[in-house]
Amino acid sequence: MTPPLEPRALPPGSVVGILGGGQLGRMLALAAAPLGLRCHVFTPSAACPAAQACDALTVAAFDDTEALARFASAVSVVTYEFENVPARTAEFLAARVPVRPSPRALAICQDRFEEKSFLRSAGAATADFRAVDELDGLHRAVAAIGLPAVLKTRRLGYDGKGQAAIRADADIAAGWAAIGQVPAILEVFVAFDCELSVIAARGLDGDVACYDPALNVHENHVLARSTVPAPVTAATAAAARAIAATIVRRLDYVGIMGVELFLSGGAEPVLHVNEIAPRVHNSGHWTQDACTVSQFEQHLRAVCGWPLGDPARHHDVIMENLLGAAAERWRDIAAEPNAALHLYGKDEVRAGRKMGHVNRLYPLGSGPPARKLTFRDRP
Amino acid sequence: MTPPLEPRALPPGSVVGILGGGQLGRMLALAAAPLGLRCHVFTPSAACPAAQACDALTVAAFDDTEALARFASAVSVVTYEFENVPARTAEFLAARVPVRPSPRALAICQDRFEEKSFLRSAGAATADFRAVDELDGLHRAVAAIGLPAVLKTRRLGYDGKGQAAIRADADIAAGWAAIGQVPAILEVFVAFDCELSVIAARGLDGDVACYDPALNVHENHVLARSTVPAPVTAATAAAARAIAATIVRRLDYVGIMGVELFLSGGAEPVLHVNEIAPRVHNSGHWTQDACTVSQFEQHLRAVCGWPLGDPARHHDVIMENLLGAAAERWRDIAAEPNAALHLYGKDEVRAGRKMGHVNRLYPLGSGPPARKLTFRDRP
Repeated sequence: MTPPLEPRALPPGSVVGILGGGQLGRMLALAAAPLGLRCHVFTPSAACPAAQACDALTVAAFDDTEALARFASAVSVVTYEFENVPARTAEFLAARVPVRPSPRALAICQDRFEEKSFLRSAGAATADFRAVDELDGLHRAVAAIGLPAVLKTRRLGYDGKGQAAIRADADIAAGWAAIGQVPAILEVFVAFDCELSVIAARGLDGDVACYDPALNVHENHVLARSTVPAPVTAATAAAARAIAATIVRRLDYVGIMGVELFLSGGAEPVLHVNEIAPRVHNSGHWTQDACTVSQFEQHLRAVCGWPLGDPARHHDVIMENLLGAAAERWRDIAAEPNAALHLYGKDEVRAGRKMGHVNRLYPLGSGPPARKLTFRDRP
Repeated sequence: MTPPLEPRALPPGSVVGILGGGQLGRMLALAAAPLGLRCHVFTPSAACPAAQACDALTVAAFDDTEALARFASAVSVVTYEFENVPARTAEFLAARVPVRPSPRALAICQDRFEEKSFLRSAGAATADFRAVDELDGLHRAVAAIGLPAVLKTRRLGYDGKGQAAIRADADIAAGWAAIGQVPAILEVFVAFDCELSVIAARGLDGDVACYDPALNVHENHVLARSTVPAPVTAATAAAARAIAATIVRRLDYVGIMGVELFLSGGAEPVLHVNEIAPRVHNSGHWTQDACTVSQFEQHLRAVCGWPLGDPARHHDVIMENLLGAAAERWRDIAAEPNAALHLYGKDEVRAGRKMGHVNRLYPLGSGPPARKLTFRDRP
């Protein structure tokens, strides 16, 4: 039986506006075309990865209201590929055209304190945390939650930037200086065994679909590899998916969300939510080749009011980020029989820059044989 | 062991020129982006499916030598998405930049008599045929090869256009008139049980890779469905692949070729080559979702001197063309859990127009359960 048509569904031929022109915007545009959807990218930078793949491009600043108004009138829905879209930009657009995920979800995810507070209210376990507005407050927060802890700016941090470890009272002043003495959050350090992530989708009709959890390994604070299936029990995987599903439901969220979780072992495994990202997520790139519907297509289905696709996996997979010079291995990777290469069209190679990724596929249920991953394979 | 680098390999960042802006060009452009390759499409029609997906577009006629010269200087290699590129266009470009597949291969495939003659010289079985240049010649050809037979224009026919059946001597004059009294080929009718096709690739280094044969079913002379695996024996499938491999080798071909074969049953199955297409092929669209490397990526790998990808299949699959109003079922198709939708971005729906296709996936080895296909499921 076909479920009823979502009345707000945007038919093929509709134009999806994307704020941001990085590799995530590029891969959204590449996933939009087979659905017959056109992408109009709004970006401050003309020479961006998405420019090569989208149907239309506006190059303007995010506070250029004239350009934003023209953009809003040219698209049927607006989404974004990074969470640091200025709140005013999102609100300006939302007054003119649907913005999905909503500006409310965006605002919560932009502020680590709001985010953690929301997660707690949704019943998700998180590390204990306190807001910190000045040095005295940081001392009080340390006294309240204990050490070791991590001090993070409330806004604009990513890939380990805007963070300082506070291991002892002696680190407090230096940590406060290191993050630039801006509004922050102190989180007690959680001794975890590994990081998992769940890519969750919620459709405009409220339907929720979660992909299998990935095991993520970072190097120099940047995601290096995601392995699926993660080497955890079925119960832990189900618990991780359930947490992600609860989060997107409680936010009335529409689109893909990346939910990062810390798994602590022991007799009773514990999952803490580390952070949520209101967008397609690097740790979900494996879905491009191991699932019939990728996270990029799923996001578009959600924001356009289409039925969600099946998140089932047809391969085991390891996604490896190609950082900096690693992308120069393109030719060897292309010669691997089970590897799917994804380059981002960036001309300039810089150390640590995300130049692309590769998904290495293995038969379903074989377990990824290339690397012997264990529960103790710590980030 | 890594094979030696093909010295002519074009690295990521290179620009691939594509002649033609239809859906095949569009899907080539979508497959190029993950390889870091940029596509520059040359098309007489600005409002074409490829325009929405390519990095650069030249809108000009195929005899506009100024535009062609600029195009040649802007790209590292030229390929094409349809076989009716004027020979002069291909030769003009080939004097300036590599054209792959070669103008020679293109010329052979553009002329049914040259094509059939080449196939015979390569040892492939074909229907008996004669060139026909005038009405008297048609009478002589009928006397030589017998009836029933099919009269086809030597050039520019596709999807059943430019063809006339000659069942009895009384049909001869009308058939000659029906095809416009132009140079033609008369082929004796082959009583076949089904049509198969093999999508074959040959790399710049001479490596050859063939996908599994598909069973093709036509409706109103247009491909309706391709089913893989085809319901034939392993020996027949291997024979079909071997014929295709011989053809691309004998032509020193570079790129994807679609090889259509007629299978006649009986105690000893016989394969006749019907025609070859020097491009990605509608009956190979199933590779987009049932293989790690699609025919589109494979074609780009070949023409750019990259190693060929593994043509192994990880799903059984039925590709269904969405003709005309069938594309209006997009929402129902999107709700099918095993369906991958591919729309071409065409605004205007016309009866019989190829608007998109859908690949329906089934677990490997399960056989396509949706339709009970048999060897006798005749086109």
